[in-house]
Amino acid sequence: MAPNPRGARIFIAEKGLIIPTQEINILAGENLTPAYLRINPWGLLPALALDDGTVITQTPCICRYLETLHPAPNLLGRDALETARIGAWERCSEMNGQNAIAEFCRNQCAPLASRAVPGFAGVKALPELVARGRQRAAWYDEQMENQLATSAYVAGPRYTAADSTAQCAMDFANAVGLPVPAGHQHTLRWLQNLSTRPSATA
Amino acid sequence: MAPNPRGARIFIAEKGLIIPTQEINILAGENLTPAYLRINPWGLLPALALDDGTVITQTPCICRYLETLHPAPNLLGRDALETARIGAWERCSEMNGQNAIAEFCRNQCAPLASRAVPGFAGVKALPELVARGRQRAAWYDEQMENQLATSAYVAGPRYTAADSTAQCAMDFANAVGLPVPAGHQHTLRWLQNLSTRPSATA
Repeated sequence: MAPNPRGARIFIAEKGLIIPTQEINILAGENLTPAYLRINPWGLLPALALDDGTVITQTPCICRYLETLHPAPNLLGRDALETARIGAWERCSEMNGQNAIAEFCRNQCAPLASRAVPGFAGVKALPELVARGRQRAAWYDEQMENQLATSAYVAGPRYTAADSTAQCAMDFANAVGLPVPAGHQHTLRWLQNLSTRPSATA
Repeated sequence: MAPNPRGARIFIAEKGLIIPTQEINILAGENLTPAYLRINPWGLLPALALDDGTVITQTPCICRYLETLHPAPNLLGRDALETARIGAWERCSEMNGQNAIAEFCRNQCAPLASRAVPGFAGVKALPELVARGRQRAAWYDEQMENQLATSAYVAGPRYTAADSTAQCAMDFANAVGLPVPAGHQHTLRWLQNLSTRPSATA
């Protein structure tokens, strides 16, 4: 359910690649065990382990790596300007979408009471951040609705990684109690459309 | 002083480019005026306005755009793997460095009392986040010291954007009262080295 691992899985599915995966249970703290910290010392998911043992972390870096090795279909931009546009919208979904939703749910989730910030232990939940997360997520939803009112996809007229990143943020938000507002018809139409792609179940 | 605009300026200087700039006063809220929101509706700095009026936002997207147009000197990676490594370290400096430091200083800064989160209005400061920011920044400093103990530069043996991004986070941290710990000799040696580059004053 976590948006970052799912973002990588959807990207891999859209590329038509098959990469063996191993699930790590964040709620149970498996991402902070010595075994996983040997793979990624930052305790974050996902991580891509290459055959020679090299590990690539951070979803956008994993996606960029895969796009360089497997350019088709292009998901990260066909020219410098489109790449910048896709990247900026991906970051909007990360910084304002994902982070807001994480703030909303991690600060009221008992198993994460001392792991309020992704990736490391010892950060206590603050109940005040639940409302702040909700507030920021509402702002994000508004930006997306404005954009999707005039754009078929998040970063322009075609499907790109900006769509899957936003899809993961919004599906996760829905799962934790922050659904897209009912009046956001453009976002809901776009989200429904994405849910019919084979990658949606990745 | 803000790390993101400075990161873009250093990148531009390292590329040997000359791009006219206009300063926007965040403390005075100039980034949230209608005039600036017409340039970047997200209220964030920096933004790169092209001659035809197109605007590129988000520092890493601006840098990627400039690197594509001006490939030398390479600052974002010479192959897929180096690009992934540089990107992951840049994101570490953003998510754990910059964000922690912003949390530390914005939640105790009177002019930002209702702008605790970069880029938009109406998010009240929470005094509890000052300590949390300090805690997260200490974790970041530790990661960097571990890395720089065995690596001449942040992402490997040569200077890249991973260095300037970390430099901006740490110089900003120092300016707001979170200096690199005195015992972090590898980080301090590296930071001193960077401060002698002509780009340091950009």
